[in-house]
Amino acid sequence: MGGALDPVVATGRNLVRHALDDLGPAARIVIGVSGGADSLALAAVTAFVADRAALDVEAVVVDHQLQPGSAEVAEVAVKQLAGIGLPARVVRVEVGADGGPEGAARTARLGALGATGADAVLLAHTLDDQAETVLLGLGRGSGPRSIAGMSAHDGLWRRPFLRLRRADTEHICRVHGLTWWTDPHNSDPAFRRSRLRAEVMPLLEDVLGGGVAEALARTAEQVRHDGLVLDALAAEVAAPHDVDTLAALPVAVRSRVLRLAALAAGAEALTATHVSELDRLVTDWRGQRRVELPGGVSATRTGASLSFADTPVKR
Amino acid sequence: MGGALDPVVATGRNLVRHALDDLGPAARIVIGVSGGADSLALAAVTAFVADRAALDVEAVVVDHQLQPGSAEVAEVAVKQLAGIGLPARVVRVEVGADGGPEGAARTARLGALGATGADAVLLAHTLDDQAETVLLGLGRGSGPRSIAGMSAHDGLWRRPFLRLRRADTEHICRVHGLTWWTDPHNSDPAFRRSRLRAEVMPLLEDVLGGGVAEALARTAEQVRHDGLVLDALAAEVAAPHDVDTLAALPVAVRSRVLRLAALAAGAEALTATHVSELDRLVTDWRGQRRVELPGGVSATRTGASLSFADTPVKR
Repeated sequence: MGGALDPVVATGRNLVRHALDDLGPAARIVIGVSGGADSLALAAVTAFVADRAALDVEAVVVDHQLQPGSAEVAEVAVKQLAGIGLPARVVRVEVGADGGPEGAARTARLGALGATGADAVLLAHTLDDQAETVLLGLGRGSGPRSIAGMSAHDGLWRRPFLRLRRADTEHICRVHGLTWWTDPHNSDPAFRRSRLRAEVMPLLEDVLGGGVAEALARTAEQVRHDGLVLDALAAEVAAPHDVDTLAALPVAVRSRVLRLAALAAGAEALTATHVSELDRLVTDWRGQRRVELPGGVSATRTGASLSFADTPVKR
Repeated sequence: MGGALDPVVATGRNLVRHALDDLGPAARIVIGVSGGADSLALAAVTAFVADRAALDVEAVVVDHQLQPGSAEVAEVAVKQLAGIGLPARVVRVEVGADGGPEGAARTARLGALGATGADAVLLAHTLDDQAETVLLGLGRGSGPRSIAGMSAHDGLWRRPFLRLRRADTEHICRVHGLTWWTDPHNSDPAFRRSRLRAEVMPLLEDVLGGGVAEALARTAEQVRHDGLVLDALAAEVAAPHDVDTLAALPVAVRSRVLRLAALAAGAEALTATHVSELDRLVTDWRGQRRVELPGGVSATRTGASLSFADTPVKR
């Protein structure tokens, strides 16, 4: 690299340092690598930080085996990482069908990274990924929960680059002499995320006068923090069966109490619409007997009492 | 109209009925009318509901005097409203320059409607307006506050049609035989809102698979409810000058406490960035002395104490 430290590299290092600062020297860190610019840049920056902090770090290149030549892409990534002194290995995963192509690949990838037994897994999502995630969430329309985006630190998973632009990761790769792989899916209009990236974001930036990706990421972060407080408030409310008690809560708390009660009863994949139907049992009851929820659970109002149970008749 | 009641008209009436159900028979209601489909539909529906409920209702057609022929547009609207038995009059306003063309027109319009002395002013914003407002707010990037959109009921102002689509208001006009005026500004690409309407929303609907306007409106409503609870929590925290007390609060509450304290000190037009700078005085203090805020107010940290005061040197 030589000469003065590149400012973007310095920012990247600071972000990774900050993301790892609670880990002791015995900690084992895994970096999830696709071979793209974002994860190669994360690996390069982390290699430097981990070396100074005497952390045990390894890159795991996930080969989803979905595209011809994926094994070669993984091998090229391993060789480049070896070139900057970072231990790296390939993990091949079998991608299932559940959750659509992107969702299934994600499930397989996270499973393989989690199975490494690491104390922390670094993921290379950038501010641009976060902005796209918020827009995808807006399309789902499940309210604040769906636009809260990805967390910078969620248990095992850490995302140091959520405040870095995608272009910055390409810059970091160039500085380190790393050649990244460009996933053809990223520009394949069959994928929603590709179209958000290629069509929606540039138009929004143009119409709204720039700064949209940053604005979306900032909004996600604040909505996430808001949700933490409201979820904690809701968790403090004892599982309620009394409709009058529920009706007296502000709707933002009541909807979360109802959601938690439904989840505790075994409901799954709840959307804002389900929660809103539960809320109508409380506040807009016109003799509806039961709201059926995914996961084979129903909520039933009897008089002034609300209860959750397995749906008696399943299809 | 004849025959069975049109279902969209029925929905419109129910929405207006619900929006007015706290008002007694002596209440004076004003409907803000532009001559567009949304406000003519609102006027038609409200005329029916007010007649049945013996409410005193009047349409006020605001002539912004910004476009040639605006007086004729207003007169046509008054005549059509008279045709459906609704008292209507024109109020001419002088639009200033502050806040850009759309903002200044809005300020003048709301001033004129507020000056009528009505107990409630009905505004005809639809779900589509709400969705566009959320997108405009996303571009501002001031966090949840900027994507909470418009309130269905905010003091004097009531927006019964926030759950109705714009196309529904055109349908209601057709059912009532009302001819609406189409504001050329609505398709003028010089206005951000027009481009959101004509370019961004159709693209988002296409990419995200439909339902985007509803999703944006639903998210706005939930974010608004979330904000009410968090704002109330923050208001319960006594104006704090002790940094340790502030630092112990969750960031979602602390940011609101800081915002309220700054507003109480006279700050104006605070953005999320200002609040975030205040937060850094508390949680990431590296000897910064002062954060200057719009409205001629500064926040100063001295040791473990935070105080707000007028900025000593003004430009």
